[in-house]
Amino acid sequence: MPVSPYIKSTMTSKSAGVIRKMFEEGLELKKKYGEDKVFDFSIGNPDLEPPEEVFQCIQKLAADRSKNCHGYMPNAGYPSVRAAMAMKTQAEQGVPVGADCVVMSVGAAGALNALFKAIISEGDKVLVSAPFFTEYRHYVKNYGGTLVEVPAREDFSLDVEALAAAMDEHTAAVLINSPNNPTGRIYSEQQIKELAGAMELHARKCGRKPYLVCDEPYRAIAYDGKTVPPVFPVYDSAVVVTSFAKNLSLPGERIGYICVNPACPDRDEVVAACIFTTRILGYVNAPAFFQRVAAETWNAKVDYSLYRERRDLIMEILDEAGIEHIVPEGAFYMWCKAPSVFKGDDMAFCDYLKKYNILSAPGSGFGGKGWIRLAYCVSKESIKNSRAAFVKAVKDLEEAK
Amino acid sequence: MPVSPYIKSTMTSKSAGVIRKMFEEGLELKKKYGEDKVFDFSIGNPDLEPPEEVFQCIQKLAADRSKNCHGYMPNAGYPSVRAAMAMKTQAEQGVPVGADCVVMSVGAAGALNALFKAIISEGDKVLVSAPFFTEYRHYVKNYGGTLVEVPAREDFSLDVEALAAAMDEHTAAVLINSPNNPTGRIYSEQQIKELAGAMELHARKCGRKPYLVCDEPYRAIAYDGKTVPPVFPVYDSAVVVTSFAKNLSLPGERIGYICVNPACPDRDEVVAACIFTTRILGYVNAPAFFQRVAAETWNAKVDYSLYRERRDLIMEILDEAGIEHIVPEGAFYMWCKAPSVFKGDDMAFCDYLKKYNILSAPGSGFGGKGWIRLAYCVSKESIKNSRAAFVKAVKDLEEAK
Repeated sequence: MPVSPYIKSTMTSKSAGVIRKMFEEGLELKKKYGEDKVFDFSIGNPDLEPPEEVFQCIQKLAADRSKNCHGYMPNAGYPSVRAAMAMKTQAEQGVPVGADCVVMSVGAAGALNALFKAIISEGDKVLVSAPFFTEYRHYVKNYGGTLVEVPAREDFSLDVEALAAAMDEHTAAVLINSPNNPTGRIYSEQQIKELAGAMELHARKCGRKPYLVCDEPYRAIAYDGKTVPPVFPVYDSAVVVTSFAKNLSLPGERIGYICVNPACPDRDEVVAACIFTTRILGYVNAPAFFQRVAAETWNAKVDYSLYRERRDLIMEILDEAGIEHIVPEGAFYMWCKAPSVFKGDDMAFCDYLKKYNILSAPGSGFGGKGWIRLAYCVSKESIKNSRAAFVKAVKDLEEAK
Repeated sequence: MPVSPYIKSTMTSKSAGVIRKMFEEGLELKKKYGEDKVFDFSIGNPDLEPPEEVFQCIQKLAADRSKNCHGYMPNAGYPSVRAAMAMKTQAEQGVPVGADCVVMSVGAAGALNALFKAIISEGDKVLVSAPFFTEYRHYVKNYGGTLVEVPAREDFSLDVEALAAAMDEHTAAVLINSPNNPTGRIYSEQQIKELAGAMELHARKCGRKPYLVCDEPYRAIAYDGKTVPPVFPVYDSAVVVTSFAKNLSLPGERIGYICVNPACPDRDEVVAACIFTTRILGYVNAPAFFQRVAAETWNAKVDYSLYRERRDLIMEILDEAGIEHIVPEGAFYMWCKAPSVFKGDDMAFCDYLKKYNILSAPGSGFGGKGWIRLAYCVSKESIKNSRAAFVKAVKDLEEAK
């Protein structure tokens, strides 16, 4: 008795876990009203099933009874799995990557925690372009750091000048997430180069070189021919973290990895530190069975065109209802502006939509006040069914004026 | 750049991860000399295969393609899995336990980290009976706490008086591990009652009631008719953490749980805090697939009599070689005294044994200077083969005198 005062105050704060709360409320509402009567856009739980290759691989490996196949392996993961992830990263980044650059992790969230524990000291800062994935605040704070929110430009691209201006000797890292959760924005090659240039310049003046941390779980989910530009060729102290939650639809299985740029000046030390923090944070290792699944199936693909269809459908509905939104280039989130009657109070807009059984996530939690996030990784049927609810919600608003 | 100075100094310290280092060196030595020429007693990686029921359950669940079966579930775990763990805990503790007392975790290590993050504030202390599992130091330090080592009695039972004397207003918890890693000692019902009494008395005087945290991954592995006494009936603010690493031989799959005593005065708050810390530490949830495996097979049993055979065999070998040891009551560790010629330098004894291809873990890391730990969860064949190496190692020592 009692729990830590910090945890108590954080967990009961208004914005704490509002997405998770919505998700768990959604489960209750569905029990009450029926699955098809609740339009749950609260959480990034992919609705597309894992690819056929993944299911087949799971069945194949389930028959394996080789010695120690569910036992401990080195904390960094199976050597063969690290090698497979290196090959994957090499294909994405366009530079040679060795297995010794990779540390397997408990999802991308576990990867970020292990990495931040490794590189953040008390008082350090991590810069992030806002809006951003709400959990980053905790992941940085856990290790005595502060997440510094640097507002994106009006089109939600990076404001490189503002990021550069925010860098100082306490800056341990700049964190980017592309395609971005919650905006769906992909940062262009030009922007990545400008950011890298600004970081190099800062490093020369300041003497401390921040890591560029790229959280990329949505890399494979990009629309309209867009691709996510590589970072390794343009900045040496870069680290990619990612998972198989979104592209293989395995979020519950907690498989991800950290890959440090082979050109990183202190590469071996960072890798060793991440292996060490994986151990001492109690992850110990990424789950054995699904490490092997990921190694065999990383190149499999869900039919992402189905997410594009969902995107297009919800855009059509929002346009019909008259809710302003941006056009996502990747991921599966729709970033929508709260109607002016809410005067920028996104939480109130979310609460209002809940009355129509529409579950969404308030933007304030993402550092995006006045906006809400709709996760459209839900069935097309559910999106279709939500049309009337959205239209009525906005119409009722106007009638109440 | 560079990595956090704290992490750098900790990970390069002499005692850091010496067990894991031995384990990974062992893998190299085996490649070099052959599996049967290296006697690897370094790590608690169970050599007995998972029970048949577990393999069958894995195969059955691998065929499941039901919607979202690899997706997110509530951070606390699947409700049905929590209910199964509650049933298991009820059977062990002899008091009614509900699913709402359980939080699923990424192994017992993940459970301890989530729990300590929830209950430790900067400057708090956690008392532990030494020797103890070496990673506890990190798990407490991670959250700004200090692990206070209270030496056990000479027979490695709890020194309740010393523990009581060490309690103060900063004591967040007393941590016990029974059967104990590294000594194999099971704390008796009498000792648990005395400890509970001392903690109650302290709480009344001090106004702060420490949690009694029981780390029990070895509960099922007990010899000679011994059993691990329950704690819930004797102390209300008790929390059990455990895993399926040892009893079901699934250490690589990272499945465990936290169970808070239903009688705990702030039960709901502790449970809520552990769910929250599971989320913010980036575990998010225990791996989905093996949660379901654990729920269906928790009552399955490896044939633990095989561990007893191994224990008896290695005791016989140690007796023949002339190495002093205690008689383990549970778990699969043999706690041996370094011969007097090493003058209490257990690290030197470990290094010496390595020359005979015997890998062990130095006791200093466990807060047990002058002793070493042999993990006898290795094949009987390997133990048999080690006989000559142990005998020769000690004989050579004597001849060198």
